[in-house]
Amino acid sequence: MRSTSARKQNGTRTRTISWQDPMTTAIASAELSGMECLQKMMSGELPPPPIMILMNGKFAKVSEGRVVFVAEPSEYHFNPLGSVHGGFAATLLDTAMACSIHSCLSAGISYATLEIKINYVRPLTDKTGPVHCEGTAVHIGGKIATAEGRIIDRDGNLYAHGTTTCLLMRRH
Amino acid sequence: MRSTSARKQNGTRTRTISWQDPMTTAIASAELSGMECLQKMMSGELPPPPIMILMNGKFAKVSEGRVVFVAEPSEYHFNPLGSVHGGFAATLLDTAMACSIHSCLSAGISYATLEIKINYVRPLTDKTGPVHCEGTAVHIGGKIATAEGRIIDRDGNLYAHGTTTCLLMRRH
Amino acid sequence: MRSTSARKQNGTRTRTISWQDPMTTAIASAELSGMECLQKMMSGELPPPPIMILMNGKFAKVSEGRVVFVAEPSEYHFNPLGSVHGGFAATLLDTAMACSIHSCLSAGISYATLEIKINYVRPLTDKTGPVHCEGTAVHIGGKIATAEGRIIDRDGNLYAHGTTTCLLMRRH
Amino acid sequence: MRSTSARKQNGTRTRTISWQDPMTTAIASAELSGMECLQKMMSGELPPPPIMILMNGKFAKVSEGRVVFVAEPSEYHFNPLGSVHGGFAATLLDTAMACSIHSCLSAGISYATLEIKINYVRPLTDKTGPVHCEGTAVHIGGKIATAEGRIIDRDGNLYAHGTTTCLLMRRH
Repeated sequence: MRSTSARKQNGTRTRTISWQDPMTTAIASAELSGMECLQKMMSGELPPPPIMILMNGKFAKVSEGRVVFVAEPSEYHFNPLGSVHGGFAATLLDTAMACSIHSCLSAGISYATLEIKINYVRPLTDKTGPVHCEGTAVHIGGKIATAEGRIIDRDGNLYAHGTTTCLLMRRH
Repeated sequence: MRSTSARKQNGTRTRTISWQDPMTTAIASAELSGMECLQKMMSGELPPPPIMILMNGKFAKVSEGRVVFVAEPSEYHFNPLGSVHGGFAATLLDTAMACSIHSCLSAGISYATLEIKINYVRPLTDKTGPVHCEGTAVHIGGKIATAEGRIIDRDGNLYAHGTTTCLLMRRH
Repeated sequence: MRSTSARKQNGTRTRTISWQDPMTTAIASAELSGMECLQKMMSGELPPPPIMILMNGKFAKVSEGRVVFVAEPSEYHFNPLGSVHGGFAATLLDTAMACSIHSCLSAGISYATLEIKINYVRPLTDKTGPVHCEGTAVHIGGKIATAEGRIIDRDGNLYAHGTTTCLLMRRH
Repeated sequence: MRSTSARKQNGTRTRTISWQDPMTTAIASAELSGMECLQKMMSGELPPPPIMILMNGKFAKVSEGRVVFVAEPSEYHFNPLGSVHGGFAATLLDTAMACSIHSCLSAGISYATLEIKINYVRPLTDKTGPVHCEGTAVHIGGKIATAEGRIIDRDGNLYAHGTTTCLLMRRH
């Protein structure tokens, strides 16, 4: 589960990503509580979601109601304006917020994200270095859960923050 | 500007992406109107943003106030739940909505995305096939612009929709 | 169902509002389809929600998937900045968007609003005159529905727009 | 600045609200820092915004970056579903969040709300009793500020939470 980057002579950059079958985790998770599933992804026992490899991110901390990812914004995340695309922060925040909800769910309960809202307060660049994306569960109800999240750098500067709503569903 | 995928023997999948220096477009765009910049990215005269390559997307249509991308959700966009991660739709919608605003701006005006909100109404999978992501400008003011967007498949089924707020700034 | 305003001598303004027991409509609606319930509120057969009286608004049009209110922003809706408070537009949009979803529901299905997001693009004042607030259903699923809405004046100028997510529930 | 309610014999309820000219505060605030303006509204030296009277709310605490309102949801805030309309929470949250940003602004800087997003997690009724609505500034930049807010009852139960984006503007 890794990615390699190399700069070609003519200015073209390349990166090769590799990932495992994401259904392995999807199927295994049906028998696990959220905490068990997240811990197995963090330890490498279960493969992480491929999109996290695209985002150059990995689990940093998993506890009940709070999940932290570390990710490094890079040139291949750029928008046409010369900074990192908002999709990078949205993807990280969506992941961390949804996982913070997942961490509160027992085996037999699944979830789906209904909506996310992301505020961008500072631009991320390839000079920013690794950032922490922290998701925190706000409300865990019977049918609906909400969470919030933040992206900060090592000095505590805030780059983006968001909220999400998830639908909780009993597995059949 | 292309990506190749190959399945390895042990179940590991790999994909190699390649992109050009994104500062080429960022610098050129300072002298161009939004429409000129978008048309040059669509024609290939200017390199597209690297993140669109990660999302397997490309410009399909550019007109004033409306921009359409086509993208194909794939296994490497998956979340741990066995479907495409919400970051895929968020990244496409952010791009299409921001570009629909950009298409209305004259040379000398830049923009920054302040926030996005995305609603997910159907799951995307690697069986969905190519989807259209359409962004439409709603309000272009002196300092602030808003837009909305939708992702639909070839049969017109809706997968996600969203809104965005951008800050407009005079370049120095 | 009306309100009266009178200006007092010392600069104090007063307004008296009157409303009916809102549980009358709540109880009756359990036996009605959404369209039937909305039409009875529009005709006056069932009392409208009290909050619409605070907002000086009334139903203007009800059809399946689309509901329009007319309301007049007034001095008693003001914020401390000298214009109409954002809560006025939020309340109208929430109402019109939720009603557009309600209009698509058969008897036996209830709904609850999970979230709203409102964009403000022009200030409303007590000089704006009556505005139209239009809600349109975007997606009606089995468990979740979404809608969008806009507030415009008689010249078509846009003041605010929004989206919402509602949870659909089978009544017992 | 008060409101009176009385139940009529035929089931019609009435409430009379009274307010002062909101331009008094709007004009005075141009010469004041945000903290000064908010403290004068809290002490009654400047009239509060009329919409707060509609919402039955008043300032409970003002400090730099954090503003708390107390408000009591009542029958005249009801929606047609038999509970308090989402516009009640949206109006309170909009106010508390915007005021938390205002509290950080020096004289000569004004603001306008660009957007709000509100999550509803528990229904408010006329049995809930007084609720606290707390707004907290998240980011105060040169042109843009963001804040978040929550509504809780006296036992700490959460009813709604939200975020907002404001545009900061130099007064002329």
